[in-house]
Amino acid sequence: MIDLTLIGIGTGNPQHLTLQAINALNTVDLILIPNKGAGKDDLAGLRREICDQVIQNRDVKITEFDLPTRDPKTADYRQRVDDWHDAIARVWSDEIHRHLPDGGKVGFLVWGDPSLYDSTMRIADRLQRQQQVEMTVIPGITSIQALTASHAIPVNEIGAPFTITTGRQLRDKGWPDSADTLVIMLDGECSFQSIDATGVKIWWSAYAGMKEEILISGPLAEVSDQIIETRARARTDHGWIMDIYLLRR
Amino acid sequence: MIDLTLIGIGTGNPQHLTLQAINALNTVDLILIPNKGAGKDDLAGLRREICDQVIQNRDVKITEFDLPTRDPKTADYRQRVDDWHDAIARVWSDEIHRHLPDGGKVGFLVWGDPSLYDSTMRIADRLQRQQQVEMTVIPGITSIQALTASHAIPVNEIGAPFTITTGRQLRDKGWPDSADTLVIMLDGECSFQSIDATGVKIWWSAYAGMKEEILISGPLAEVSDQIIETRARARTDHGWIMDIYLLRR
Ligand SMILES: C[S@@+](CC[C@H](N)C(=O)[O-])C[C@H]1O[C@@H](n2cnc3c(N)ncnc32)[C@H](O)[C@@H]1O
Ligand SMILES: C[S@@+](CC[C@H](N)C(=O)[O-])C[C@H]1O[C@@H](n2cnc3c(N)ncnc32)[C@H](O)[C@@H]1O
Repeated sequence: MIDLTLIGIGTGNPQHLTLQAINALNTVDLILIPNKGAGKDDLAGLRREICDQVIQNRDVKITEFDLPTRDPKTADYRQRVDDWHDAIARVWSDEIHRHLPDGGKVGFLVWGDPSLYDSTMRIADRLQRQQQVEMTVIPGITSIQALTASHAIPVNEIGAPFTITTGRQLRDKGWPDSADTLVIMLDGECSFQSIDATGVKIWWSAYAGMKEEILISGPLAEVSDQIIETRARARTDHGWIMDIYLLRR
Repeated sequence: MIDLTLIGIGTGNPQHLTLQAINALNTVDLILIPNKGAGKDDLAGLRREICDQVIQNRDVKITEFDLPTRDPKTADYRQRVDDWHDAIARVWSDEIHRHLPDGGKVGFLVWGDPSLYDSTMRIADRLQRQQQVEMTVIPGITSIQALTASHAIPVNEIGAPFTITTGRQLRDKGWPDSADTLVIMLDGECSFQSIDATGVKIWWSAYAGMKEEILISGPLAEVSDQIIETRARARTDHGWIMDIYLLRR
């Protein structure tokens, strides 16, 4: 029997950790940290740092594993991701059996909140299909919260809806009718360039909540170029970038 | 000069507190807690409990204030809320000047995350118009995260958008085209009854993350009545209720 706990750790600020997350980190038998190789973003490093800072229980075993890579030969995107998740589930299963042959509690540190644009839960589902697995999810501060907190803005207008979506969706489908506020995530291409900027304000944040944080806000037409340049420079300087923004019309 | 810190405290589970929130609670001079009178929901009680549990600094002064009520004689809803926020800002201002005549750091405990369907930031904006106020926002676990964590479900489908909205919007406007996933908040009327249930699944949670938590999920057509009955009973038993749900089609 395996107890899997997916632990939301917030978006890069170790101070985002909740008491619940700290408690979970101290009560599992094993923590699995994906080692993305010579990491461009060093998120594995941040996960280790968080463990060092808050785990007092010396019985917790922390181990890194090599994350399989996606197979570029598989043409279909959905299939490629599916295969990849299968491969990760197999590695998890191997690691768990090696370290906990009689079962036990396993923890995963998940960036932000485990429910939001993250595949860890879907990989855990695969494990559940093969063996007795109990899954627990510990909520975490999301990058949406980190964005709005840093800009000190509400995410919604009073009583109004808002839509969370991706850079690709914004490029392909345009601004959805349903809401005058959008939060855009997973955008590698400054997709705000694809919409009509008239009357639109943007609040942009890179490395939200982290010490490297960069904030830019203003009318989209006025700050668009500045964001594009700042993003490109920061990405070169740090070797990686994560950014998120809110658009309001 | 006044430093205002809006501190997200999560949705009723004291374990939702982040290290950042705990640190903020211990470094302010004054914490203002709204006392909603002989409280149906006893959220003031929960805020006091949180302060008792995590504030070690004995110099932090905690004070309760009577929250003004909305004036039912003002017919226009927007105007009524505006006036009410003005009145609250005046009470804040009075309390702050009484306790901190020379300025200082003031903290507010905000349910969930301060950016999400909450008026505290808008009231703080009013204060900023009258005097030198610096505002800091500390993100908190939202009821959306508490809902999805308890059900152990992702909020989004892979790469797909989702919309957060209110019960009123769902009743008045129906299901928006933009997304196949909706999260409904601020719904006193089980507004899921107003949509066509065919092919829709619901994940419902009352008192999400709290010890009183109730979870129901399934095809909307099958569990709709059960939710309505459970909600009515829980509301009577506890004297108050807060609920939230995710709809997927
Ligand atoms: C795979 S998703 C994971 C989201 C995460 N589960 C959460 O709750 O925020 C990654 C995307 O989240 C956003 N993101 C995550 N952390 C961020 C940060 N510190 N600053 C800005 N954006 C961030 C970016 O849009 C990025 O493309
Ligand atoms: C005024 S809004 C405040 C939201 C809060 N700022 C947050 O981040 O969740 C109140 C609404 O949030 C939802 N909510 C807040 N706490 C909840 C809880 N513990 N369980 C279920 N729903 C909750 C309900 O939909 C409720 O009507």
